[in-house]
Amino acid sequence: MHEKWMQRAIDNALKAWGHTSPNPHVGAVIVKDGEVIADGWHKKAGTHHAEKDAITNAKEAGREDDLYGSTIYVTLEPCCTYGRTEPCTEWIMDAGIAKVVYGCTDSNPEHAGRGFNYLLQAGVEIEGPILEEECLAINRFFFKWIDEQKPYVILKMAQTLDGKIATESGQSQWITGAEARHEVQKLRQGCDAIMVGSETLRQDNPSLNVREIENPRHPKRYIWSRSDLDQNFKAFTQEGGATYCRAQSKNEWQYFLSQLGGEEITSLLLEGGGFLASAALKAQIVDEIQFFIAPKILGGEDSRSSVSGLNPLGLDEAIELENMQITPCGKDFLVTAKPVYK
Amino acid sequence: MHEKWMQRAIDNALKAWGHTSPNPHVGAVIVKDGEVIADGWHKKAGTHHAEKDAITNAKEAGREDDLYGSTIYVTLEPCCTYGRTEPCTEWIMDAGIAKVVYGCTDSNPEHAGRGFNYLLQAGVEIEGPILEEECLAINRFFFKWIDEQKPYVILKMAQTLDGKIATESGQSQWITGAEARHEVQKLRQGCDAIMVGSETLRQDNPSLNVREIENPRHPKRYIWSRSDLDQNFKAFTQEGGATYCRAQSKNEWQYFLSQLGGEEITSLLLEGGGFLASAALKAQIVDEIQFFIAPKILGGEDSRSSVSGLNPLGLDEAIELENMQITPCGKDFLVTAKPVYK
Repeated sequence: MHEKWMQRAIDNALKAWGHTSPNPHVGAVIVKDGEVIADGWHKKAGTHHAEKDAITNAKEAGREDDLYGSTIYVTLEPCCTYGRTEPCTEWIMDAGIAKVVYGCTDSNPEHAGRGFNYLLQAGVEIEGPILEEECLAINRFFFKWIDEQKPYVILKMAQTLDGKIATESGQSQWITGAEARHEVQKLRQGCDAIMVGSETLRQDNPSLNVREIENPRHPKRYIWSRSDLDQNFKAFTQEGGATYCRAQSKNEWQYFLSQLGGEEITSLLLEGGGFLASAALKAQIVDEIQFFIAPKILGGEDSRSSVSGLNPLGLDEAIELENMQITPCGKDFLVTAKPVYK
Repeated sequence: MHEKWMQRAIDNALKAWGHTSPNPHVGAVIVKDGEVIADGWHKKAGTHHAEKDAITNAKEAGREDDLYGSTIYVTLEPCCTYGRTEPCTEWIMDAGIAKVVYGCTDSNPEHAGRGFNYLLQAGVEIEGPILEEECLAINRFFFKWIDEQKPYVILKMAQTLDGKIATESGQSQWITGAEARHEVQKLRQGCDAIMVGSETLRQDNPSLNVREIENPRHPKRYIWSRSDLDQNFKAFTQEGGATYCRAQSKNEWQYFLSQLGGEEITSLLLEGGGFLASAALKAQIVDEIQFFIAPKILGGEDSRSSVSGLNPLGLDEAIELENMQITPCGKDFLVTAKPVYK
């Protein structure tokens, strides 16, 4: 039963997908006698936290009395510090909520565990973690940024089964189907920044905007290029424009990521092409890959590869992937994994 | 219940994997009152068919009386023609078996459906098909050969997620892990012929033998090369040697396959490299792909691709894959699919 309600809390959290950065996605649901009293979620930095949102919703629905003795499911440990809003622990205690079931604890050392102590002292029962892996996953951008003050980096590719992303002449639209391309739009919506290499800019001239998503939030655009490019490319002419990234060495990439982190950019999506993919993997900055694989074989000695760049001298230079997962996505497949760096 | 016994019959059929060509793999199990009376399978061309094998086994175990009124599960429709052995229909009727449950029908027009008529006239009950897809799949080599007098062609590759099969210098051992390599040995065991390109011969100098398999049956070796090669390569020095394939055009490939079919070669395994893969796909001779994908990214502009060859001018030249299936294989994944030719 706990899993069912926690899943609902997760679903609530994701209703604000792409809108809470640099805050985490947090969802809650208040339940009493097997009945939902109220849902709630954190909508945007500076607005109610999920717990307060749910409690407020219950009150506005005239169900304040039902809060007494109820259970609140919340994806992340309730906060207990006074920030831009009052601490959630206060709200929970004041509402007379009897039990808190949490998904995962806060990796922010200022918060971790402290909220529980307040609640326990006030006689509120605590249980968890429930669906911890899922609750951590929805905030992997946030946790990386809190821990390292650098964005979480995703390398996304759309390739044929034989690893090709374009013909020799650069034709790449479209390798994958509509469902896979829609998933990419959702991914863009969730990322604070996006980057492509100069070759992808020249070939595809992408706007790097979010499409097909209600209430889109466009990521900050970065172009990986040693030299300046024609400012008429769409990426530059969109609102917000685009910024160059000149990073080459490992140190330069780390410095670049620190800069982004300082600007409250918690996630960076690398969308190709093959040279950027190779450079980012060699610099060991990629936290996660998302490769969309189309059920096609393109072939061709000079067709463009998803990962290009410097030639490895031996197979031992290959980057191992762990936790590789494959899920169908329309007629394509999505392969996610975490690179393991030596 | 039918599925359980038919699966046992399939498992029996596969005990002779690699040994029945050009005959099909056929398995049987005789059941009475929920108890197994005898198993049987076709072991080799010229020996007992599966039905006769099972009936003989029952008799040898002193269970002849139990055959009366029993049910025989058999993966393929029983034969009714006098070939190298007596027709199975006779054996079934003589034994007093009451019911035949079959997996699939015989695509050989001389046999299809006729066996059933004999049995029905003799008062034997017939039911099926059961697990038809599985029963057809274990004899896909045989059925192609019977229908077209040409071998079934499988293109096998071992690649990284980004489609690389070797470094620029040709190092390819090993991309995939022990389990995947063992699966390839089982595949070789089941194939009548095997082929590699000249570049693979030069780089890897493979013996093209079956390893790690009990009672191995080595495939006939073919080397795809326009010019003659050093006869000291292992493929040439093994027992049986190796033969050149010079096919380039579609017609030449079809002629080559017809020649193999005439030699009772029902299956051909293409094991790379990238140029042979490209040529075979362009000639539209590949019936099935089996790509083993290692959870690794190699990268490198000049690393070798699983499918190389002529550069396609547009994405519309990509070969679509249907019925793509992905199964874990040790730490790797096996992707199987059927190319769709325009």
